[in-house]
Amino acid sequence: MDANTAVAFAKENGERFVEELKELLRIPSISTDPERRADVRRAAQFCADELTRIGMERVRLIETSTEETMVGVPDGPARIEPGRIGHPLVYAEWLKAPGKPTVLCYGHYDVQPPDPLDEWHSPPFEPTERNGNLYARGAVDDKGQMWMHVKALESLMAAGNGTLPVNVRVILEGEEEVGGEGIAAFVREHGEQLKADVALVSDTEMFAPELPTLCVGLRGMIYTEIEVRGAKTDLHSGMYGGAAPNPFVALAQIIAQLKDAEGRILIPRFYDKVMRPTQAELHAWSSLPFKEEEYREHEVGSVTLTGEAGFSVLERTWARPTLDVHGMPGGFTGAGAKTVIPARATAKVSMRLVPDMTPQESFALYKSYVESIVPKGCTLEVRLIHSGDPIVVSTDNEFVRAATEAMHTVFGKETVFVRGGGSIPIVGDFVRELGIPTVMMGFGLPDDNLHAPNEKFNLGNFHRGIESIVRWLALVGA
Amino acid sequence: MDANTAVAFAKENGERFVEELKELLRIPSISTDPERRADVRRAAQFCADELTRIGMERVRLIETSTEETMVGVPDGPARIEPGRIGHPLVYAEWLKAPGKPTVLCYGHYDVQPPDPLDEWHSPPFEPTERNGNLYARGAVDDKGQMWMHVKALESLMAAGNGTLPVNVRVILEGEEEVGGEGIAAFVREHGEQLKADVALVSDTEMFAPELPTLCVGLRGMIYTEIEVRGAKTDLHSGMYGGAAPNPFVALAQIIAQLKDAEGRILIPRFYDKVMRPTQAELHAWSSLPFKEEEYREHEVGSVTLTGEAGFSVLERTWARPTLDVHGMPGGFTGAGAKTVIPARATAKVSMRLVPDMTPQESFALYKSYVESIVPKGCTLEVRLIHSGDPIVVSTDNEFVRAATEAMHTVFGKETVFVRGGGSIPIVGDFVRELGIPTVMMGFGLPDDNLHAPNEKFNLGNFHRGIESIVRWLALVGA
Repeated sequence: MDANTAVAFAKENGERFVEELKELLRIPSISTDPERRADVRRAAQFCADELTRIGMERVRLIETSTEETMVGVPDGPARIEPGRIGHPLVYAEWLKAPGKPTVLCYGHYDVQPPDPLDEWHSPPFEPTERNGNLYARGAVDDKGQMWMHVKALESLMAAGNGTLPVNVRVILEGEEEVGGEGIAAFVREHGEQLKADVALVSDTEMFAPELPTLCVGLRGMIYTEIEVRGAKTDLHSGMYGGAAPNPFVALAQIIAQLKDAEGRILIPRFYDKVMRPTQAELHAWSSLPFKEEEYREHEVGSVTLTGEAGFSVLERTWARPTLDVHGMPGGFTGAGAKTVIPARATAKVSMRLVPDMTPQESFALYKSYVESIVPKGCTLEVRLIHSGDPIVVSTDNEFVRAATEAMHTVFGKETVFVRGGGSIPIVGDFVRELGIPTVMMGFGLPDDNLHAPNEKFNLGNFHRGIESIVRWLALVGA
Repeated sequence: MDANTAVAFAKENGERFVEELKELLRIPSISTDPERRADVRRAAQFCADELTRIGMERVRLIETSTEETMVGVPDGPARIEPGRIGHPLVYAEWLKAPGKPTVLCYGHYDVQPPDPLDEWHSPPFEPTERNGNLYARGAVDDKGQMWMHVKALESLMAAGNGTLPVNVRVILEGEEEVGGEGIAAFVREHGEQLKADVALVSDTEMFAPELPTLCVGLRGMIYTEIEVRGAKTDLHSGMYGGAAPNPFVALAQIIAQLKDAEGRILIPRFYDKVMRPTQAELHAWSSLPFKEEEYREHEVGSVTLTGEAGFSVLERTWARPTLDVHGMPGGFTGAGAKTVIPARATAKVSMRLVPDMTPQESFALYKSYVESIVPKGCTLEVRLIHSGDPIVVSTDNEFVRAATEAMHTVFGKETVFVRGGGSIPIVGDFVRELGIPTVMMGFGLPDDNLHAPNEKFNLGNFHRGIESIVRWLALVGA
């Protein structure tokens, strides 16, 4: 099979590919929102239907929900153990290339919530093309990048008269934005059904426009909530101010003790397991086309950057643990004034982890530290919402070499190796449970507004991504 | 006129009085909520109609809105100065008792928002009687207490064949819970229309059940917002954590520098003007039936009380400045996880003030301090939402003596003099603009859940309050 034929097919059908993607983007598959449950399933079915249409086999939805179970309690009434309500996985395969490697294509069809809605220039679930970009929630994270896989497979199928140059399994999940519990359990318990030689994940970004990039490291994370309780009920700040504990003040005091003014995390022993990147890796990063002042002004837009002194921006965002607060629900948040001392308030706090930290140990250190600094008059609960391992991928294997060759053909440039500051927990699961490396070949751009209003995907990159994946799969099967 | 006849009328008609109050309580006149504008006006009209029905004269709504005005700018286009949208005042009078004093009865018909709704045992705007209490938003603050004034006047009118023993003006406002800007402007600009010898305000509480109480001091307040801005748009904490400023972390650092772990406010010079109560006043407070452990357990319900070391609970809540945080809007507050570094976040922060602090000076000290501790990478804006003066009332005058006598007849006990920790800015305006003292005769109880879920008013106190006001007005006119 000639990869050029498949690339030609992809080019001829490029406009149709975009229109199909728009259909998928119109489905508000927000995995964290219980009211969008049906939409999430609709997105799964949409992907499954397309995988069937292009010629993949054994296509099916795999439920990740578990049922309630009745548990007997000695000397007491039976108790109902709650089940888990999960979003389905989508599975497909084509395994008719004996002797060839098997590639596991991974993607996710769920998206982040779109709020704050009023900052979008076009509605988040009405995909809109402007200036060569496609704007929508999920455009790049990850529906658009997942769709590249599907369309690369379609193009290869068309060029190969219904055959592929390699064996392929596809696994798509609908819970990436809420911790990926369902796929993690499936990989752990049914790993043999995903047996492969390498995984392909396109959920990362290029370091710069036109610069082919492979991501070879990711931060892990723990996402937590600290709930502080003071009085038993909401109180009037006039009558009780000066005697009743204030949960927001308590949370502020706690948060101010979690991270110092320079961004260094103050949790004892939190940095013990942090491995610095090698000198070679740090040297390569320093050669990347990165202009700190441009990044500050155009990407972040703050008056100055923050973070630990003595580390470059790339090291701070790729290879250092960090701590952020995402929201502080509770109390009065409407317009105007309400003089309430709320009975409780919560802070949503996450930490990014780097090799060789583990979520388990990091959470334990954090929890015991927070519990040791509870402000006067308050009680608190520290909850782990979800977590993921940090990972590094070796660059020394045939699949990575094939990826650099494929992208060289498409972009005419050498590939750069970077890390990502975000977390893709499934990549750690593939290493640990399946024993396979992952090629992280992503085509997002740094200004794509992931998880923020006005998320976009550059359509040129969408098409170059399909071509790169076509050529990579052909090389892996050569 | 015989006060006993009026009291007998009030007793005979007590049930009807409660049913009328319920009607008023069903109107959700939440002054801070723009969507309740029509309801707020409906409550005003309800009060005006009843004042007319009982025989008061010149009853009318007084608009507090001001119109937009076109302002010319030299060398530029005309600019529109925004008008103020205010809720109406309700005015009524009966001035046919020549030679007798004039009493100005004040109350407010607006209420606080009812959230959090799920903590109410019965809906906030469906008044419900349970265990001798009437539960509803506004039951005690202040619709129920305002209604005592109206019903006392009705009872006196009935006993006096359409006459009152004193001259009376009634002024009701619909903006007490949002700063009272409209009535403040009216008192300032049209004070002559409210000419009186004394004001009666029933918006305070009894120190204990069965213990007649006059409030002779109130804390003032400043209610503010601190808005912190970091990045120009919401960012993904994986990609930008370690470089982008986090507005919630910044707010936490600021709040932790506003108040120490013991509750002492850290704003430089903030305590300079604080006057300690006299030794006599402190001594009287120490004789009040106050049990700190009971208060902690049953009123506050926290594991310990908070506040400045070296001051009693009563001094801390009545005569010391305090600082509270009421809510921190911004970021992600839904269920689950969203890994956003929000572009901005806000803290709603208020401070209670005591004589001789002023809102103007206190806000200036606060603002300049907050602006001096802006965390790295952030900018911020400090806004004053509303404010009120702290006040103390002299106990040495005939109106206060008449009040203690009236309540002695009703309760059979000596009146105690207390202060209130809350703010009733209008009392300061009456002193400053009209030059009259205010008798603060309130009949709420400490566990009435003002501004909180399950607000209530003890119906026994509602009836005793009407009787006390009837007797007080009769004594003032004797």
